[in-house]
Amino acid sequence: MSADGWLAVVGLGPGDPRWLLPEARSTIEAAGHLVGYHTYLDMVPADLVGDRQLHGSDNRVELARAGLALDLAAAGERVAVISSGDPGVFAMAAAVFEAQQAPDAAPAWREVDIVVVPGVTAALAAAARAGAPLGHDFCLVSLSDNLKPWSIIERRVRAAMEADLVLALYNPVSRHRPTQLATAFDLIRAHRPPGTPVVLGRDVGRPDEQVRVVELGELDLSVCDMRTVIIVGSTTTQIVPGAAGEPRVFTPRSYPGA
Amino acid sequence: MSADGWLAVVGLGPGDPRWLLPEARSTIEAAGHLVGYHTYLDMVPADLVGDRQLHGSDNRVELARAGLALDLAAAGERVAVISSGDPGVFAMAAAVFEAQQAPDAAPAWREVDIVVVPGVTAALAAAARAGAPLGHDFCLVSLSDNLKPWSIIERRVRAAMEADLVLALYNPVSRHRPTQLATAFDLIRAHRPPGTPVVLGRDVGRPDEQVRVVELGELDLSVCDMRTVIIVGSTTTQIVPGAAGEPRVFTPRSYPGA
Repeated sequence: MSADGWLAVVGLGPGDPRWLLPEARSTIEAAGHLVGYHTYLDMVPADLVGDRQLHGSDNRVELARAGLALDLAAAGERVAVISSGDPGVFAMAAAVFEAQQAPDAAPAWREVDIVVVPGVTAALAAAARAGAPLGHDFCLVSLSDNLKPWSIIERRVRAAMEADLVLALYNPVSRHRPTQLATAFDLIRAHRPPGTPVVLGRDVGRPDEQVRVVELGELDLSVCDMRTVIIVGSTTTQIVPGAAGEPRVFTPRSYPGA
Repeated sequence: MSADGWLAVVGLGPGDPRWLLPEARSTIEAAGHLVGYHTYLDMVPADLVGDRQLHGSDNRVELARAGLALDLAAAGERVAVISSGDPGVFAMAAAVFEAQQAPDAAPAWREVDIVVVPGVTAALAAAARAGAPLGHDFCLVSLSDNLKPWSIIERRVRAAMEADLVLALYNPVSRHRPTQLATAFDLIRAHRPPGTPVVLGRDVGRPDEQVRVVELGELDLSVCDMRTVIIVGSTTTQIVPGAAGEPRVFTPRSYPGA
């Protein structure tokens, strides 16, 4: 590999440029190539795109995308792989390591140093908008079973319920998985009372941002889509009125019995 | 309350100014008062302190600190409550809501709109340095039992183990709690093989940053202190050699049986 090449996996945060880390910005500025899912490349602020070469690809081709980025870096190019949120959370960082370590990986890929620049993941952003629902122990689970069996997802959702953890759900629903969200909520409703606070954050940090706070008993799952992150409270999470009467959610730092 | 007063809870991120969100910076710039634990006020970049009035306090007086911030905002002042990391994760955001909602809260506090500015929490930063250990479902648990019974901590650690979640542990040890980390790891070792990757991130993003990658079987708990975040891999998490032979850790996006 050329000594000049490098590969950084960068998170844009949820979308609002005020949530883009300075290190993410400077890494993109130093790159010659931006590699990512089309939708995320479109989120890169225009002043940062400049004359950088864009390599957009479709969703669900993460390993091919990672291979392209490794090829470019191994050839001496400066490459930023673009994710939204934090690239280490259900995103491209793990995919780049997987591609590099695959049995059929090009030997030159092993010479590429992979740098990961952290970011604000969707659950933290939705939580901030709603109040402080993640103020106590919590769990992040992706409901997508494209790459894992549904049984392990159920096991994890059940574990979060039984251990009274706040639960943030990523990728709750897609065209290919229309019924699983309801199945997951059957499990959740079996463990949590109807008054449990639920936060639905859709496109948080983007122009169409929508944050809803509802009680579990009145939750309408049909408003959730792939761009929604769902936060289900624990038994201690509370909905309280904000200064203008709007609902705010927080999980106290203390737990009964302390 | 004066119409001019406001209260924002702001996270500095782990400490590196390149990980400070632009919105956190601009919020601090707009504030007249910075309220926080001494150690975190010391982390505010000098150019941001300016002539702002600093209200430092000791650790473990979160509710008194929150009350001071609410008093100032209710009196018309512009107040930033400073946390490290993300203020919504085991930090001041929940404490400010708790203080506002307490039975003995001053009526004027209820009129204060609480804004939360998200940030990069320690586990995401340590994960980025180590590779991508949080690339799959995971769980964040604070080991401090100052405000919750040890029994619920054990229940949550056990749940994470049984559901094969990656587990990030905050506040692993303190002078007042010298033995609990070992107790938690007895539980972890009963569920995970000795080859399980463990990441120890101490002061990540600060001048004395230290990131260690070890296998569970050779983990020496005595190197962990209150400033360490510990990430315990799932059964699929791997240690692989980086470009310079240094250990990197990632959790593949796929899970056996998919």
